[in-house]
Amino acid sequence: MNKIEHIGIAVKNLNHSNKLFSKLFGKSHYKTEEVVSEGVNTSFFKVGENKIELLEATKEDSPIAKFIDKKGEGIHHIAFDVDDIEAEIKRLKKEGFIVLNEVPKQGADNKLVAFLHPKSSNGVLIELCQEIKK
Amino acid sequence: MNKIEHIGIAVKNLNHSNKLFSKLFGKSHYKTEEVVSEGVNTSFFKVGENKIELLEATKEDSPIAKFIDKKGEGIHHIAFDVDDIEAEIKRLKKEGFIVLNEVPKQGADNKLVAFLHPKSSNGVLIELCQEIKK
Repeated sequence: MNKIEHIGIAVKNLNHSNKLFSKLFGKSHYKTEEVVSEGVNTSFFKVGENKIELLEATKEDSPIAKFIDKKGEGIHHIAFDVDDIEAEIKRLKKEGFIVLNEVPKQGADNKLVAFLHPKSSNGVLIELCQEIKK
Repeated sequence: MNKIEHIGIAVKNLNHSNKLFSKLFGKSHYKTEEVVSEGVNTSFFKVGENKIELLEATKEDSPIAKFIDKKGEGIHHIAFDVDDIEAEIKRLKKEGFIVLNEVPKQGADNKLVAFLHPKSSNGVLIELCQEIKK
């Protein structure tokens, strides 16, 4: 675990929330990206060495739509940057964490990602992410 | 807003969670602190330039006890480091955010802190914190 890569926040309306978080940080988001496989539109803000990722559902059965239905808008996950995602998945499984993606998948922002089930990590949805080398 | 200072996570049992997060990060917490005025015991982990603060209630009417009753364990707040907390409070009020502490109060870790109401910030409880100069 090198650092917190980003914090994901589930929002209902990306346009509205881009404006809101621009006011909070005093600067605009620096990019947007759609991740079709996850059914989300995302936007990114930079704060120090971290990013804030806003997530808006693009379809009803998107995990973000389900999260908002159940819990409302708010913090969805914390993502940690790792050097070797496959090694971290193995290590964390041995430590008793429930890994939701034993084979890492393509996420936003040119990353390989895997999630840990919140019930094995104190109610916190944790994402591991590793930059894809080009 | 200089950077994310810490992420606060509400936990039921600090001892148990210290062990869990030690496994996650591959290292122990580096300090604990009780904040009597808030009714919490805290422990801190360092990850990159950020901290993870675990929060355990010490009494039934602690905000952390109420949060866990309502939502279960999980991410409680994000704290942003600021240079001048009073100037930030004024700026954010003008931008339409609801500031819960117009006069900053003493928080954990030698900080002056103020919170923004989650209903004005997309369901996210936001803490502003400024290091107290000695």
